Amino acid sequence: MSAQEALADDPLLLRDERNGVVTLTLNRPSRFNALSEEMLSALQAALDGLKEDQAVRCVVLAASGKAFCAGHDLKQMRAHPRQDYYEALFAQCSRVMQAIVTLPVPVIARVQGMATAAGCQLVASCDLAVAAQSASFAVSGINVGLFCSTPAVALSRNVAPKRAFDMLVTGRFISAAEALSFGLVNRVAPDAELDRAVDALTAEICAKSPVAIRTGKAMFGRQRSMSLEEAYAYAGHVMACNMMAEDAAEGIDAFIEKRKPVWKGR
Amino acid sequence: MSAQEALADDPLLLRDERNGVVTLTLNRPSRFNALSEEMLSALQAALDGLKEDQAVRCVVLAASGKAFCAGHDLKQMRAHPRQDYYEALFAQCSRVMQAIVTLPVPVIARVQGMATAAGCQLVASCDLAVAAQSASFAVSGINVGLFCSTPAVALSRNVAPKRAFDMLVTGRFISAAEALSFGLVNRVAPDAELDRAVDALTAEICAKSPVAIRTGKAMFGRQRSMSLEEAYAYAGHVMACNMMAEDAAEGIDAFIEKRKPVWKGR
Amino acid sequence: MSAQEALADDPLLLRDERNGVVTLTLNRPSRFNALSEEMLSALQAALDGLKEDQAVRCVVLAASGKAFCAGHDLKQMRAHPRQDYYEALFAQCSRVMQAIVTLPVPVIARVQGMATAAGCQLVASCDLAVAAQSASFAVSGINVGLFCSTPAVALSRNVAPKRAFDMLVTGRFISAAEALSFGLVNRVAPDAELDRAVDALTAEICAKSPVAIRTGKAMFGRQRSMSLEEAYAYAGHVMACNMMAEDAAEGIDAFIEKRKPVWKGR
Repeated sequence: MSAQEALADDPLLLRDERNGVVTLTLNRPSRFNALSEEMLSALQAALDGLKEDQAVRCVVLAASGKAFCAGHDLKQMRAHPRQDYYEALFAQCSRVMQAIVTLPVPVIARVQGMATAAGCQLVASCDLAVAAQSASFAVSGINVGLFCSTPAVALSRNVAPKRAFDMLVTGRFISAAEALSFGLVNRVAPDAELDRAVDALTAEICAKSPVAIRTGKAMFGRQRSMSLEEAYAYAGHVMACNMMAEDAAEGIDAFIEKRKPVWKGR
Repeated sequence: MSAQEALADDPLLLRDERNGVVTLTLNRPSRFNALSEEMLSALQAALDGLKEDQAVRCVVLAASGKAFCAGHDLKQMRAHPRQDYYEALFAQCSRVMQAIVTLPVPVIARVQGMATAAGCQLVASCDLAVAAQSASFAVSGINVGLFCSTPAVALSRNVAPKRAFDMLVTGRFISAAEALSFGLVNRVAPDAELDRAVDALTAEICAKSPVAIRTGKAMFGRQRSMSLEEAYAYAGHVMACNMMAEDAAEGIDAFIEKRKPVWKGR
Repeated sequence: MSAQEALADDPLLLRDERNGVVTLTLNRPSRFNALSEEMLSALQAALDGLKEDQAVRCVVLAASGKAFCAGHDLKQMRAHPRQDYYEALFAQCSRVMQAIVTLPVPVIARVQGMATAAGCQLVASCDLAVAAQSASFAVSGINVGLFCSTPAVALSRNVAPKRAFDMLVTGRFISAAEALSFGLVNRVAPDAELDRAVDALTAEICAKSPVAIRTGKAMFGRQRSMSLEEAYAYAGHVMACNMMAEDAAEGIDAFIEKRKPVWKGR
């Protein structure tokens, strides 16, 4: 039995929880963590399971091995050459991406190696992203005759249009540094310090009031598509509710009294 | 009587007018120019008073002391722990921000020191911003348990989403250089040359046709939320009207005749 | 007869076709390729003629002489001082810009020298842009009393709002390097290597599946104004159709078999 076959018995998705930080790790390194039907189902189930979990403060989306994620499982796709199969597959994948967007807590992509096609879309769909210096990003479906249409939805909501279109029609790789300058990732760390950089970011988030972070995650996504006037009406109401939370009272009192706040999470 | 108390008798908001440039200066340096109810009222009244004033060419929003603006007055907020009070307060603040956006002339933020929470929102809400090299920017409500929801509305319409969300959940400060690279400010000047940089920008604007500047300020904001087709129909009509103004005829004739135009402002 | 008058007999717009790449060249260098009524008509006709041409893979929009395009023909505009004339002219110009956006294949601006006012709008309206190092960009109508309202529509959909507004109210020139950092152009080449850079980009696009490129061009533009949910529903359907194309099957099989794909263009 080869090392690759042995891995096939491992769970598709690893779940680790530490101090409120849930790390979901794509775990098919021999397949470059391709988003097969099974992997998408595992991700959807894991994300659904986190929705109601009040102990979770933030989620890290990570991956095993040399690549972050190579996108869809092309062999599996070619084995089902039917329009209805593809419609269902892309709908399933789009649900996963939107489940990241609508999760009540921030989701951080931890990117090592290549993030291509729907793998790049995963990064774009996360709220925040930390990349290793050697990571690279592409929406490379165009190289196999398949324009990355669903990845384009996420990418074009993160990156200026000419930059997104360039990546989509050329399939070219951009470096972590370029991804940073495009706004596709938030931080770039030397490869050996990637975990340290992710830990620093999750620690920052965990030091905040849980109710304030959850309030912000939900409102930020929703207000983006509103007109300025609608967005202000909505945000003002959300912020008034946030002010009525015990944590805001505690936080402001602690600030005035020059002490550290003690969050109650409500 | 302390120096701070003495200042309490000074006007909350200073108003200076010179050659068509109105400078409004937040004037509670001992309170880091916090946006108290009173300060918001003063700002609203000043902005309302400028709406019909045809002599005004542009507005500079400045601040006294070491900080630009620290956002809401947290002590005052804690003194009124009622949802209806907060709803009214954020609605009042949102009206001020939108009054900047809908003012008929460009508004330029002149930023020294810290611009935090609703102070950072003020910068984002202005049409243009010039910052001192040592200025810094944060949406730091999250540090006191209060996600900067209304500031997020303005920030996320200026800055790429992952960058905005990073600032909002970590509360971290960004430098003037980073604000420039994010598109949150237009120009950064050495601290000692901040006024010179602001003056240079207002002089550029004052050298243009008033009718063209006012036309542009109004149309730019309105077309942003339209579809491409709607925006073109609207912009084409606006531009045809602009062409019928005496200033456009004069400007084009002057250009063809290689002389300086003499604006009539109509 | 002067050299300038001689040129007046040349076609307004040159058309060259080579290996599926159509190059349209604005050809009134003595007029800085101004977008006169006649030039706009020639452009519209050329673009309309490309819509149904399945042999075309991508379009390069180029210009003769020292400048790319100086925008509208100001002398012609002043010769018709009537609102209805201007309404018709800007509507005509907006149709050309939208014909670029809706053309079934990517359009690449090849920019040398100045691209000002509606000339800058042409660059913004193209899907991709390659600029010579010495190229410069401005929306300079404001200098003649005419705010660049229709150019603002294209510019503000490419460039962060404070940057766009700064350019619009000051009329200032930005360099090719600044245009690159703003996302207004994709690549900057030394002047002597501009054609090589454009050729490299068109060669990249021509090496892809025609059906995938056409699919992507159409979907990218359409999904931008949709909500996230609508965009995913639309993109998933588009991608399922793309998967049913022979080229996607061939592309994926070639990838799996580690060989070069042979596109059939359907």
